Amino acid sequence: MKADEHSTNELIAELRTLLGERLTTSRAACEQHGRGESLHPPRAPDAVVFPESTAEVSEIVSRCARYRMPVIAFGAGTSLEGHVAALRGGICVDLTGMDQVLEAHAEDMDVTVQAGVLRTQLNSYLRDTGLFFSVDPGADATLGGMAATNASGTNTVRYGTMRDNVLALTAVLADGRIIHTGGRARKSAAGYDLTSLLVGSEGTLGIITELTVRLHGHTEAVTAAVCAFPDIAAAVQASIQVIQMGVPVARIELLDEVQMRAVNRYAGLDYREAPTLFFEFHGSNASAHEDAANVGAIVHDFAGEDFRWASDESERRQLWQARHNAYYAALAQFPGAKGIISDACVPISRLAECITETKADLDAAAVHACILGHVGDGNFHVIFCVDPADTAAIKTAEELNERLVARALAMGGTCTGEHGIGYGKMDFLAREHTDAIEVMRTLKRALDPHNLLNPGKMVAV
Amino acid sequence: MKADEHSTNELIAELRTLLGERLTTSRAACEQHGRGESLHPPRAPDAVVFPESTAEVSEIVSRCARYRMPVIAFGAGTSLEGHVAALRGGICVDLTGMDQVLEAHAEDMDVTVQAGVLRTQLNSYLRDTGLFFSVDPGADATLGGMAATNASGTNTVRYGTMRDNVLALTAVLADGRIIHTGGRARKSAAGYDLTSLLVGSEGTLGIITELTVRLHGHTEAVTAAVCAFPDIAAAVQASIQVIQMGVPVARIELLDEVQMRAVNRYAGLDYREAPTLFFEFHGSNASAHEDAANVGAIVHDFAGEDFRWASDESERRQLWQARHNAYYAALAQFPGAKGIISDACVPISRLAECITETKADLDAAAVHACILGHVGDGNFHVIFCVDPADTAAIKTAEELNERLVARALAMGGTCTGEHGIGYGKMDFLAREHTDAIEVMRTLKRALDPHNLLNPGKMVAV
Repeated sequence: MKADEHSTNELIAELRTLLGERLTTSRAACEQHGRGESLHPPRAPDAVVFPESTAEVSEIVSRCARYRMPVIAFGAGTSLEGHVAALRGGICVDLTGMDQVLEAHAEDMDVTVQAGVLRTQLNSYLRDTGLFFSVDPGADATLGGMAATNASGTNTVRYGTMRDNVLALTAVLADGRIIHTGGRARKSAAGYDLTSLLVGSEGTLGIITELTVRLHGHTEAVTAAVCAFPDIAAAVQASIQVIQMGVPVARIELLDEVQMRAVNRYAGLDYREAPTLFFEFHGSNASAHEDAANVGAIVHDFAGEDFRWASDESERRQLWQARHNAYYAALAQFPGAKGIISDACVPISRLAECITETKADLDAAAVHACILGHVGDGNFHVIFCVDPADTAAIKTAEELNERLVARALAMGGTCTGEHGIGYGKMDFLAREHTDAIEVMRTLKRALDPHNLLNPGKMVAV
Repeated sequence: MKADEHSTNELIAELRTLLGERLTTSRAACEQHGRGESLHPPRAPDAVVFPESTAEVSEIVSRCARYRMPVIAFGAGTSLEGHVAALRGGICVDLTGMDQVLEAHAEDMDVTVQAGVLRTQLNSYLRDTGLFFSVDPGADATLGGMAATNASGTNTVRYGTMRDNVLALTAVLADGRIIHTGGRARKSAAGYDLTSLLVGSEGTLGIITELTVRLHGHTEAVTAAVCAFPDIAAAVQASIQVIQMGVPVARIELLDEVQMRAVNRYAGLDYREAPTLFFEFHGSNASAHEDAANVGAIVHDFAGEDFRWASDESERRQLWQARHNAYYAALAQFPGAKGIISDACVPISRLAECITETKADLDAAAVHACILGHVGDGNFHVIFCVDPADTAAIKTAEELNERLVARALAMGGTCTGEHGIGYGKMDFLAREHTDAIEVMRTLKRALDPHNLLNPGKMVAV
């Protein structure tokens, strides 16, 4: 139940006393905090607060609880399913001021950070340790936001998702209580796995304020390559073969010919405009060389051409920059366009079928769309580039996306590999987990009985 | 609330109608089903049932719920913290009759099995596929039991724990509802992670009836070695160095000199009776050779001697057989003795300190005890060999174990790396998770409001 206007003002006054200038009700700030990077209708919160510690978040949430006021956690604002829209108003807790690296344990290969630390900031911090934080969703998100959405991305095929890499959390619950979950031991069988429950819960069960994540060692050799294929099916079949052969690639990414054209135009590059795989290999000099040779043989079998090596670090950076810019490159082709991004993930044996059928569906509909994906995990995206004013185009994209989800589910896949549910995919979630969804509701009710934490997201209660 | 004797008899009569001879109230069967492999006092259930399908488990649990009768899931009976004791009586659900491999997907490297499939049975089934199931807790446990306790074991350092390897579950909830969690996609951001919540919940939130687990590919080369060290600190330091250097060992196990003596006597072997590391390397011929050379250099730095290779498969099998028999070898030294096994896990940087202090504590107390451990994960066990009638020896072992847990927690570790909580470690769990324990209670109450699923375990409600 949303507080009335009077009590909203009373709460905001209380919070202002607590936080001073670290609270704002300015329209611009509120609007900016009610939207992610998608076309889902945004909704501004009543106020935005900028806490600097877990204790402050606890105090803020306690007071909101007393007023039955919704609380929405906010990181870099790069989510794609409307996760941060303040659907019932409320207080947005912007965690970007909590940007301290608290404790790095190089010898244990873990680090504890505040939730607002950015992915690139953490890797800069780690530069001299020989270690890196692996999860890379593309956007320069906060670690708290990445944990809350179970982010993954390009090198998940080797190093795992956010859930695989979070060892411990500090979180504030709906009543303001602070809890600590997990620990720094590499494994534990002590109690229910609250860490995995909070990771991916999108701020609906608790607000993550600190987290301990695993780090990985830089390997002796890092090499990269691109390879073009005659058609998308061949590219996908080659990537499936690489995974099934057990080659420990660090990244294996697919971009279709539409996406490659966009990438070339965006950055003035001259890649062949055909379905293309981008590879990265991490290992010793000997093993990276061995992996690359094995992959070379496989792509040859699938008529891959122009297997082009990034011979030095600058060329490798350029190659991955091209991949990282893919989303913006796609949009840049159509000035004023916005993206609607699908996010299916299927068992790898069904991937070629799923992508081929999807491609045919896109071609038949004559929309502006390209395909790219983390094919080593069976995960791929369609980026629909639409004019936000063109309701017919949006409807078409949504219908294509719905057919894609149905196709993925029929193949034993999931409606979202990495973007999460927000309020954009709640129907799909219910369709995917027809019986388990009720258990999710039970957990939400148990941990947030007044439905104050990011209400209207994930599960309807 | 436990049903009274009259309604117990009524329920048993109903279940007998349903299951016929697949229900027993024989004293021998009930007693055998109320104990694991530990010294925790066993407690027999009122009856044992042997379902053959998820639907039957659902039917059994529904009827128990109607009578408010406790239900305890049972696999191979190899748990170590009293997990299966029917503390409040009730119906034991023995899942070993559900022993079918349901669907193997070699190309996706996963397999779906019924909960009663044994670890060795699954690997026999997979023999011709080039794939194997990695989790190996020593005992030939059922996969359902291993999931319920988040088992891990010797090659977790390379392939992960049970939680890392379970992709999907079918489970029966406290009211008899059947749910499906997770899926066969390699990753998903769809909803709360109910799979990780049920894994390690020890039958207190649901009964796992089917599960889909990841498989791994056999590598081209598997090599193994043993190496003796002048003292336990040197052995541990060497293993820490191996992990910190990022050598991808598949197994790295420590056995102290007491344990090595036991192993030699048990199997007529002639290993040096000194603190010893057992290694296994998986990879291509080139990489396994490279890893072994790196490890050879490290153990040399820590005065390791007799770095002895298992040159062929039979020698390698003998070596790991010796490791697998360690527990029984330790007990065999003292006829009639039973084991009390500790299970601490600490961040790897604290492992040498933790083991050295523990060893000193054991030496000072003059108990029969040896140390072995999965040191690559920071996890180790003390096996106390005690005469079950010697209450003074048991008390001493328990005090030493308590000090060890306190030491591990003070070092940022956990009270259990892999054995779980059962009813033997509930106090330790509450000490480790002082604030999160209340959330665990909330979850238990939400999912099992009448406290029927394995009551008296994990958390007190």
